[in-house]
Amino acid sequence: MSTASAFKGKPVVALCGGVGGAKLALGLNRLIGADLTIIVNTGDDFEHLGLHVSPDIDTVVYTLGGLSDVERGWGRADETWNFMASLGDLGGETWFRLGDRDLAMHVERTQALRGGTTLTEFTTAMARRLGIAATLLPMSDDRVETMVMTADGPLPFQRYFVGLQCAPVVQRLEFKGAERAVATQQVLSALRHPDLAAVIICPSNPYLSVDPILAVADIRKALDAVKAPIVAVSPLIGGQAVKGPTAKIMAELGLPADSVTIARHYPFLSGLIIDETDREEADKIEMPVHVASTWMRSFEDRDRLAAECLKFAAQLSIVRKGESAA
Amino acid sequence: MSTASAFKGKPVVALCGGVGGAKLALGLNRLIGADLTIIVNTGDDFEHLGLHVSPDIDTVVYTLGGLSDVERGWGRADETWNFMASLGDLGGETWFRLGDRDLAMHVERTQALRGGTTLTEFTTAMARRLGIAATLLPMSDDRVETMVMTADGPLPFQRYFVGLQCAPVVQRLEFKGAERAVATQQVLSALRHPDLAAVIICPSNPYLSVDPILAVADIRKALDAVKAPIVAVSPLIGGQAVKGPTAKIMAELGLPADSVTIARHYPFLSGLIIDETDREEADKIEMPVHVASTWMRSFEDRDRLAAECLKFAAQLSIVRKGESAA
Repeated sequence: MSTASAFKGKPVVALCGGVGGAKLALGLNRLIGADLTIIVNTGDDFEHLGLHVSPDIDTVVYTLGGLSDVERGWGRADETWNFMASLGDLGGETWFRLGDRDLAMHVERTQALRGGTTLTEFTTAMARRLGIAATLLPMSDDRVETMVMTADGPLPFQRYFVGLQCAPVVQRLEFKGAERAVATQQVLSALRHPDLAAVIICPSNPYLSVDPILAVADIRKALDAVKAPIVAVSPLIGGQAVKGPTAKIMAELGLPADSVTIARHYPFLSGLIIDETDREEADKIEMPVHVASTWMRSFEDRDRLAAECLKFAAQLSIVRKGESAA
Repeated sequence: MSTASAFKGKPVVALCGGVGGAKLALGLNRLIGADLTIIVNTGDDFEHLGLHVSPDIDTVVYTLGGLSDVERGWGRADETWNFMASLGDLGGETWFRLGDRDLAMHVERTQALRGGTTLTEFTTAMARRLGIAATLLPMSDDRVETMVMTADGPLPFQRYFVGLQCAPVVQRLEFKGAERAVATQQVLSALRHPDLAAVIICPSNPYLSVDPILAVADIRKALDAVKAPIVAVSPLIGGQAVKGPTAKIMAELGLPADSVTIARHYPFLSGLIIDETDREEADKIEMPVHVASTWMRSFEDRDRLAAECLKFAAQLSIVRKGESAA
């Protein structure tokens, strides 16, 4: 399945949240490296211990930079926790765990942002420093704060996700600041590139991780105007996410946890990739569907799914061209 | 030499810099714990990586809290350096080494100060948290910055001390901000306590570590007004400091590196403790001198020297009372 060259050096954009999305982003980066721009969710960003923490950006940076802890699923490999232990001894906040190695990123970023560097500048510089071929872009340099409106009241994302382990019942999501957030020139240029070959929506949580990106009006508008195929990989396998609360949140929002719902969630979608387990749902989805093995256990799985995304998008691209010629 | 009870619960104040001074402070804390107030130099404090670092306070806190690395002479025991290693990989500044455990203190302090907590409040809270009986006070809540005026130009203290390993030739010391720095009520109350039994100047570097404290006008005035004996322990043994650049700086400032110079350096001094090695200098010193073994290698050495300080001060106290009765 040598489809890495499906687009012969044409640019591809991926939208990505944290862990699940980063796995596919890794595969895409390995296949098309320099042609790839990854727009990353920053709705999870928060100020913690006086430091600016960007969990999704860091997951993508560490994953693509070969520094992530593949077993644990978040943070850095060979991590130690002496800062945390010491912080606890001093009476500090320990509910959000920051590893000793990981901490360097937050300290550097906090300093850079205070000094007037933008999050985009910092992120691209770090990606370059770590030898990542793809261009990594935060969705915006403006603060957007994912607020989880729950039966227990509004909760900042990390309080909900890490502090309360996603236990509270979600009623609604709000993206504070999104209405004022400006898409960066870099993000808009990537989405408006005349040669753009495809947009891939990684299998991140659509509600928590992708919607904050779409909440930035200019990004949503740019996506609506994209002529290239926009392909999403469903984060569900047999009605469950591999990791994270996607299915739980869908149930709480009164949505069936299936691929049909995921397809409907993205109005600008050209096609959806679903897992083999959900093969039977394909007929109910009102758009082109590609069935694949979407559970990325090995690095080979990541590469293979990335290749299938590109191949599927290439097929849709030909169909489109055919349509417009007709 | 059971002189711990020389003052029967009366308050004692110590002035202290970093490593050398902290050793004696530890002995004093073990002997008279709750009766001891330690005023610590903050001229070395600096903002590094966006964090407020207070090297001398931390040395005293870690030493008295039983957390210090006795072998290395600074920082915390069982320290790891993964933050530093990772910071270096990201291209961050690594000339000033912050251990993973140590970092917790800087992050907590920076957060506290940004939130409006004073350095005095933070320091006393940490000392309490770590079970330190003595009261630890920064010399001021205002920033005083020790600037080392060298043949190579002016250098902030840590650049000179850590960055350049004290290599540049010192011409003069300046304590930026000292003229505006206010002594805290806690510092002044300790020095003006009606029952104050003694002030001990720890064997810290007089020029780099004690002078910044004395540069705060209210502290200097309060010391001048102290009626209790003020005893200093010379940091020199045979014309050399156990650690640090005291002798080198004295030479560069054109001062003989001997106990006579140390005695003259503190105009308010009642008596000086010198090392046995320097016994012959005793006659040349124009004040009461006590000869002791001042090199604190073991914990017993620290306790013993602390006891000798208190005993010597008690003797001077009796002499003074005798004088005033005469």
